Amino acid sequence: MVKSAPSQMVEPLEHAMKDGGKRIRPALTLLAGKLHRYNLKVLIPMAAGVELLHTATLIHDDTIDDAYLRRGKDSIKQRWGNSNAVLLGDYLFATSAGFVAETRNIRVIKLFAQTLMTICTGEIEESLYAFNKSRDLYFQTIGNKTASLFAAATESGAVLSQAPEEAIQSLNDYGYNLGISFQIVDDILDFVGQKETLGKPVTNDLTQGVFTLPVILLLERPDSDEARRIKQAIEGDKAAATKVIVEAVHSSSVLEECYGIAEGFSARARSALEQLPRNTVYDSLAELAGYVTERKS
Amino acid sequence: MVKSAPSQMVEPLEHAMKDGGKRIRPALTLLAGKLHRYNLKVLIPMAAGVELLHTATLIHDDTIDDAYLRRGKDSIKQRWGNSNAVLLGDYLFATSAGFVAETRNIRVIKLFAQTLMTICTGEIEESLYAFNKSRDLYFQTIGNKTASLFAAATESGAVLSQAPEEAIQSLNDYGYNLGISFQIVDDILDFVGQKETLGKPVTNDLTQGVFTLPVILLLERPDSDEARRIKQAIEGDKAAATKVIVEAVHSSSVLEECYGIAEGFSARARSALEQLPRNTVYDSLAELAGYVTERKS
Repeated sequence: MVKSAPSQMVEPLEHAMKDGGKRIRPALTLLAGKLHRYNLKVLIPMAAGVELLHTATLIHDDTIDDAYLRRGKDSIKQRWGNSNAVLLGDYLFATSAGFVAETRNIRVIKLFAQTLMTICTGEIEESLYAFNKSRDLYFQTIGNKTASLFAAATESGAVLSQAPEEAIQSLNDYGYNLGISFQIVDDILDFVGQKETLGKPVTNDLTQGVFTLPVILLLERPDSDEARRIKQAIEGDKAAATKVIVEAVHSSSVLEECYGIAEGFSARARSALEQLPRNTVYDSLAELAGYVTERKS
Repeated sequence: MVKSAPSQMVEPLEHAMKDGGKRIRPALTLLAGKLHRYNLKVLIPMAAGVELLHTATLIHDDTIDDAYLRRGKDSIKQRWGNSNAVLLGDYLFATSAGFVAETRNIRVIKLFAQTLMTICTGEIEESLYAFNKSRDLYFQTIGNKTASLFAAATESGAVLSQAPEEAIQSLNDYGYNLGISFQIVDDILDFVGQKETLGKPVTNDLTQGVFTLPVILLLERPDSDEARRIKQAIEGDKAAATKVIVEAVHSSSVLEECYGIAEGFSARARSALEQLPRNTVYDSLAELAGYVTERKS
């Protein structure tokens, strides 16, 4: 894929693809597919399409948020500028659509288009609901921007392996709940992570006015000392508010509480697996639900 | 489509879609389809997908080129900013992919993904080859960025109407040549057009270092007065160079020469139709080949 790209794109594509990320989404497609009668000739292009779609959205995200770091390296926008980042993301959307078309399966092709719309909706909500303090809107937004692709990853694997309809639905549920858990932990790690291990600046979201679960939980207790400090701070200077919010999060037990909520979604993901065939792939999917809440990066 | 979009996108979507453009690409899909046994249930979603893909690329183009006008109105980036323009373009890519998937035809779905890659390659080439003086690279770039979608528009219509393979190829040739002619005229109109009629700033391309056919033809005559003036100008101040180039183009007969070249491609488009069934749709396609070189906007 990198070699057949236009010459100007080769270097940024290599930068975006090499040593990048955990590849959890394509792993989900392959595992969900391998639970049933699978054919790698369609599962592998699908898994590649899922990962490239994810990469494309990350590149455009960093363009939109003006983020300078991604996975511990310069973001594409930071190194190659806005225009190249927009073009590279578009090129990857096209490439991912091409891989998905290789499956020749209309149902997963439609799922793919629908998922891209849902992800865009999530991104739009995130900017629309800046300084959002509602737990419901938070779950709606991360459902759209993150969990939808996890669900599409597992669902497409199941569809391509001709899994029974109930198994397809179970694997969609598994993926969705896993995605919610994954994103909550991502948002926790924004507070606990160091630049070096997480690969993006701590509290990047906060400077954009994106309140994630830890801050939302604090603000749900209007009489608490932390809520008062945060409310005061965000009415004043936005840059200074970031420091106040980070301190308020760390002076409370809210991150443990968020871990508890993430573990709840991981447990739901595991129980969605219950009716599925028990084999080594089943065990991997079950273990993955534990991994997402234990990971440190 | 506009009504089901996330609320933040409704206004920019209406702005992008209303009174916008000539709708020549979806017309090509419908006409090419109607030459054979057509089914509007698949032709209309395909035509919509083609037009939305085009709209998405325009929105990202204006983001990349920092263009402030499009079709006589503010560009999306100008009115709603870079982030919303990137997101809106992505949302339209997804929507167009969804429409194309509605055809349930793997061949046109693959064609669609491939065409988006080709368009991106054309865009990349355009920025890569800034200050390009080669006619070959010009035709390669406009082939990728413009003619590929014209060809996909006609080819997809033919495929969806189960046209014979030779007819599909003829309609692809027709679309490609028509697209080249269309883009040459677009590049001519950049020089002769007024802001009001063309809807984008005159010589917008020049300020980005994009040399189109009129300038390339002038530079092919190294001993001419115009070529000398242009070469001198582009070695100096870029903004002042634009004025010199526009004057050089108008003091020569190069625009008539470009019209002649465009008419040549329109003639090739018409002759690609020769083996196709003669009916009123045939006449419309043949007339369209004349229209693209006669249009004033």
